[in-house]
Amino acid sequence: RSGEMAKLTQLIDNEVFQAYATYATIVLLKMMLMSLITAYFRITRKAFANPEDTASFGKGESAKKYLRSDPDVERVRRGHLNDLENIIPFFGIGLLYALSGPELSTALLHFRIFAGARIIHTFAYLIPFPQPGRGLSWAIGYAVTISMAYKVLKT
Amino acid sequence: RSGEMAKLTQLIDNEVFQAYATYATIVLLKMMLMSLITAYFRITRKAFANPEDTASFGKGESAKKYLRSDPDVERVRRGHLNDLENIIPFFGIGLLYALSGPELSTALLHFRIFAGARIIHTFAYLIPFPQPGRGLSWAIGYAVTISMAYKVLKT
Amino acid sequence: RSGEMAKLTQLIDNEVFQAYATYATIVLLKMMLMSLITAYFRITRKAFANPEDTASFGKGESAKKYLRSDPDVERVRRGHLNDLENIIPFFGIGLLYALSGPELSTALLHFRIFAGARIIHTFAYLIPFPQPGRGLSWAIGYAVTISMAYKVLKT
Repeated sequence: RSGEMAKLTQLIDNEVFQAYATYATIVLLKMMLMSLITAYFRITRKAFANPEDTASFGKGESAKKYLRSDPDVERVRRGHLNDLENIIPFFGIGLLYALSGPELSTALLHFRIFAGARIIHTFAYLIPFPQPGRGLSWAIGYAVTISMAYKVLKT
Repeated sequence: RSGEMAKLTQLIDNEVFQAYATYATIVLLKMMLMSLITAYFRITRKAFANPEDTASFGKGESAKKYLRSDPDVERVRRGHLNDLENIIPFFGIGLLYALSGPELSTALLHFRIFAGARIIHTFAYLIPFPQPGRGLSWAIGYAVTISMAYKVLKT
Repeated sequence: RSGEMAKLTQLIDNEVFQAYATYATIVLLKMMLMSLITAYFRITRKAFANPEDTASFGKGESAKKYLRSDPDVERVRRGHLNDLENIIPFFGIGLLYALSGPELSTALLHFRIFAGARIIHTFAYLIPFPQPGRGLSWAIGYAVTISMAYKVLKT
């Protein structure tokens, strides 16, 4: 029975899980930051999606013209959606991967490359970098998640 | 070794985790409800996104006119996307927070304020409330998630 | 104390959790596949969202015409968003369900029906099947998730 316990101790209270918790939190916070950047561009570009958001600009036609889409706002929103599409699978598969008993060094490599790639992806999207900058940073994060999924399914 | 076990018992089989499971399920169900509300508005407003969804209205032009966007449908969809952007980080960061050993009373405070804020946010979006009603309810949920992330990273 | 340990062993290192890990990884990978299908249609239909993505087609007006939306691309994107709206609640509620101590046979039934329904949903969206094919496959996955949420809240 003490073998089972040791196993459980390995599973949760270990360095891999601590590392996972740190990097998962970092990339989720980075994803949440996109909301603030969207709000920043909506306010500075005066481009809103809801009539009630433009009420402070007056009534009728004068406010209605701020109900519009703006290229900068749409760019941040695309980046945010891309985060949802990529960071959430990392969170889910990464959790199962962290519980599957990988080597700490291998796990850290996966987590760090993913976090780095997604941070670069955000800069590549917002500045923007010429392609294939954004494409490559996306593909690296994608490949890391696939690699973790392979380990989970093998275990 | 019995210290480690006690720790593990604390981690999963404890009241904080039970509370997390309850509130996380509630907000995920609330998020799923948005799908039903979208379907309700698509059917009552006759506004669909896919040609095959309008086939029951007849063929050709008579059905084609229902392939359109509708302000009510788009409003629910924006609310749904906002849920994805905010409830998912709560789920992820909240899980790691629940495993980081917070006080039960502090944890309950976080979970309850978040769940309340997101339920108010949904009403604020759908009714809609005048601003800053929706903005405030969004910011409260956001701040709760940041507070949990801070605890995770400190641990 | 050995009772608590046995409980913990049940919670994580058991067959239900292994089954959850397998099926959750499968549906998350299926969701990630949508990114590749979107990229495939964007490239073959020459329909891009960002100016920097069209730079390889030349400068100015000749490249600008590829900044457009395409029905096939939009269809895959709707399927991807529907995955985010449904597979993520399955991942979250399913995790809590797997930790709530269900029977293995019941749990496997939930996981397998969900995974099957979402794979059928993807084919129904992309081919597309006439309705109610897509609607039914969506509803089955939705009902499975609700059933798991009921078990979590009851526990």
